[in-house]
Amino acid sequence: MRPYRAVVLLFQFYPLLLLLQSVSSFPHKIIPRLSPHNKQALILRNPDDVISTSAISSKDFKTFFYKQTLDHFNYAPQSYATFRQRYVVNSKYWGGPTSNSPIFAYLGAEEPLDDDVGFIGFLDDNAPHFKSLSVYIEHRYYGKSVPFGSMEAAMKNDTLRGYFSSTQALADYAEILLHVKHKFSAHYSPIIVIGGSYGGKLASWFRLKYPHIALGALASSAPVLYFDNITPQNGYYSIVTKDFKEASKNCYQTIKKSWAEIDKVASKPNGLSILSQRFKTCSRLNNSSELKDFLDTMYAVAAQYNHPPKYPVTMVCKGIDGAPVGTDIIGRIFAGVVSYRGKRTCYDTNAYNQPSETSVGWQWQTCSEIVMPIGRGENDTMFPAYPFDLNEFIKSCKDLYGVSPRPHWITTYYGGHDIKLVLNRFGSNIIFSNGLRDPYSSGGVLEDLSESIVAVTTPKGSHCLDILHSAKTDPDWLIMQRKKEVEIIDGWLKTYYADLQTLNK
Amino acid sequence: MRPYRAVVLLFQFYPLLLLLQSVSSFPHKIIPRLSPHNKQALILRNPDDVISTSAISSKDFKTFFYKQTLDHFNYAPQSYATFRQRYVVNSKYWGGPTSNSPIFAYLGAEEPLDDDVGFIGFLDDNAPHFKSLSVYIEHRYYGKSVPFGSMEAAMKNDTLRGYFSSTQALADYAEILLHVKHKFSAHYSPIIVIGGSYGGKLASWFRLKYPHIALGALASSAPVLYFDNITPQNGYYSIVTKDFKEASKNCYQTIKKSWAEIDKVASKPNGLSILSQRFKTCSRLNNSSELKDFLDTMYAVAAQYNHPPKYPVTMVCKGIDGAPVGTDIIGRIFAGVVSYRGKRTCYDTNAYNQPSETSVGWQWQTCSEIVMPIGRGENDTMFPAYPFDLNEFIKSCKDLYGVSPRPHWITTYYGGHDIKLVLNRFGSNIIFSNGLRDPYSSGGVLEDLSESIVAVTTPKGSHCLDILHSAKTDPDWLIMQRKKEVEIIDGWLKTYYADLQTLNK
Repeated sequence: MRPYRAVVLLFQFYPLLLLLQSVSSFPHKIIPRLSPHNKQALILRNPDDVISTSAISSKDFKTFFYKQTLDHFNYAPQSYATFRQRYVVNSKYWGGPTSNSPIFAYLGAEEPLDDDVGFIGFLDDNAPHFKSLSVYIEHRYYGKSVPFGSMEAAMKNDTLRGYFSSTQALADYAEILLHVKHKFSAHYSPIIVIGGSYGGKLASWFRLKYPHIALGALASSAPVLYFDNITPQNGYYSIVTKDFKEASKNCYQTIKKSWAEIDKVASKPNGLSILSQRFKTCSRLNNSSELKDFLDTMYAVAAQYNHPPKYPVTMVCKGIDGAPVGTDIIGRIFAGVVSYRGKRTCYDTNAYNQPSETSVGWQWQTCSEIVMPIGRGENDTMFPAYPFDLNEFIKSCKDLYGVSPRPHWITTYYGGHDIKLVLNRFGSNIIFSNGLRDPYSSGGVLEDLSESIVAVTTPKGSHCLDILHSAKTDPDWLIMQRKKEVEIIDGWLKTYYADLQTLNK
Repeated sequence: MRPYRAVVLLFQFYPLLLLLQSVSSFPHKIIPRLSPHNKQALILRNPDDVISTSAISSKDFKTFFYKQTLDHFNYAPQSYATFRQRYVVNSKYWGGPTSNSPIFAYLGAEEPLDDDVGFIGFLDDNAPHFKSLSVYIEHRYYGKSVPFGSMEAAMKNDTLRGYFSSTQALADYAEILLHVKHKFSAHYSPIIVIGGSYGGKLASWFRLKYPHIALGALASSAPVLYFDNITPQNGYYSIVTKDFKEASKNCYQTIKKSWAEIDKVASKPNGLSILSQRFKTCSRLNNSSELKDFLDTMYAVAAQYNHPPKYPVTMVCKGIDGAPVGTDIIGRIFAGVVSYRGKRTCYDTNAYNQPSETSVGWQWQTCSEIVMPIGRGENDTMFPAYPFDLNEFIKSCKDLYGVSPRPHWITTYYGGHDIKLVLNRFGSNIIFSNGLRDPYSSGGVLEDLSESIVAVTTPKGSHCLDILHSAKTDPDWLIMQRKKEVEIIDGWLKTYYADLQTLNK
């Protein structure tokens, strides 16, 4: 098992961390908005799998750095600055340029690329079938692709921070992919872009914005509709709630009742000490919200990464439901924590708040561009009410960064409203894949938009599961989902090669 | 007839002017690269038509200013600065939001909007038919939409100049069109974008990049393929040559021989005085290139704006061919000038070099982003050889502005290579219209790319003719071309309204 710190290091959520750090008087009302990739998934998925973060340095993968333009959309002298952007190539199975064999490109998201290479299996698992070249590209400002040295340095300066956006990232990918085609003499090799969660959004947006570079996109668990008012605010937490309800009605009810129970205990004399003891917190709780935020996040993480074969939601509920007869609500909730997180000498309620490149970078991204209005109302989930308040959100971002988010920019630039009306007769070759137990599926595309912009859903699936490495423990529905995706991509390629021939290329 | 200065004021070409002004030692080898909109067209088209530049202030048109974001793709504090962007609306024929009547939006190009409103006829001529709202939007940095006061002030500062690009302009249009929809409660009113030449590129690119905002595009005379090596360098001047050859073989041969003849005279003692006298130049020629550049541009302008009913190419050739028997080549060429430009006391060889907002702005645009490699080789046109040399071009732009052009950015961002392969199965609803006598048609889309991305060409047509106001003197083929365009757009709208109904919107 990986050390605990490593487990949570890459877990990001938004915008609790920096808010708590930098605006200590800020009310503890900030909902942890879960991030796409959570490497915790690795552990949850199969603790016995050895997934090496050093895959990137194995002999199959070659690392390159591209001299990337800092600002693609601006022509002031400072925009011409360049930085080194990392990408990694595996050419082991590639059929080579003479056969116009395809290129599969993983579009990195809000994290260093190091883990992805060993973690995202779809490219290399299917490379023998497609005879494809696998390319993994790191997102600007993460890992080894940070302009101006470190993420920390870049983020401190409000001018340097300005270049950190999805539109710049897509243009980076465009340049690198054209460069790779040139480098590998692969002019007519079709490119399929792949991404998960935020990276899935990037993949679908890339196909829409750069169809001349990518032939198609596999957008896994991409909540492209969680903007403006397209998706109900409580979409995310409604699915968390549904997951728990489906796992066990009793478990769901226990959790639902627990918040008031925690507050009740907390309000007693010495109540926080009692709670600290009962939850074996590593340090004494300063307020009940510390505990509630921890639990809140834990349930959401369990639902989002509710992967086979262990199914974390089931693990939590087993703990809650399996506590000895007579155990009170507090005791049952703690039993859920133990069941899910394992037996420990103490439980760190800041486990989900560890600073990382991802937490720092993603907070900025969500506070500038990727504004997802995730909230919940009174009694519409198993959680206490906490509606998303755009004005409050804007204010807190402005307090942090000095500039306001642009909450409508994503739908202005990428669209989203009336997506079926728009894409029914525009564009092609996108798979939106979603596991319906993934809370983010609430903001996903769940129905076919056209003949070739299609939805592939699995009722039992969780976040980004389809693009992870295949494993012996994979259930049939997951195997079938991946097979279906491969078949669809096969179809795109077949049509492309026929077109190529027709046009005598 | 409008005063001469006004005629040429808006004529821009590239990059002769500033190069000559600021780099006086620069070799006189810079080809005048013709600009899209030339208001000279107005005069050529029908000198008796009164086309008012004050149409914009007539009662049918309402002028608005939108608070526009300076940099849409960057989140540094300075990117949040705003400027007033002008747009003009004519709602006289609009069917209103209840009928979801369409919005026709003219996307302004490299000039102030003032002239366009009275000049671009397609929107208002067809508004009664479509019951459409007409919207004209000014391009950033032109007319009354210049951030930081005047074009001159904005262009002097290399940081302020940086925000002047096509990608920012398209994002401006996106924001304004969403704003207009909101303002007119026209959420489901489909938008058709229209533009000519550079504005035509913008229109087609807008449909490709913002399909959720524009349902379709009419891209008139848009040389979207005049980038990288997609179109042969000599495409433009080959068509100028063809136009003259078709008008008169003798005329073409006379012009072809004239360059050496001019040089021969110039090399004589007192040769420049002789040429100055024979061409009645307003001031004495300093070198023969001054004269040759003038003639070069004049032929190109005549070909580009070879409009009915006068057909400037025919006018030039009538002068050349109609000179009295025995007239020498120099005399014939001068007769061509007189026939085309009218009888004057003297002829200003700088007529095409008058500084204007357009000449200043367009030079920057072509020296940063819109790099069109227009040149010509030895004996492949009626002009002297002057190949486009990218390195020389980059150097001259860098000398002028301190930064290099990004010659491959347009194809990276918008595509262009293998356009049929790419758009055959991606996108929809674009008309690429071209007059085949327009030299820019060499870089246009001249064949259907798919069922709904289509080419409409007219063998006798010239630059942007289809989107100008209709006139009594319009030949049948022009009337038919416009009719065809209207029918195609009718088809898009019909399908859209059916989709709207199917989706119960």
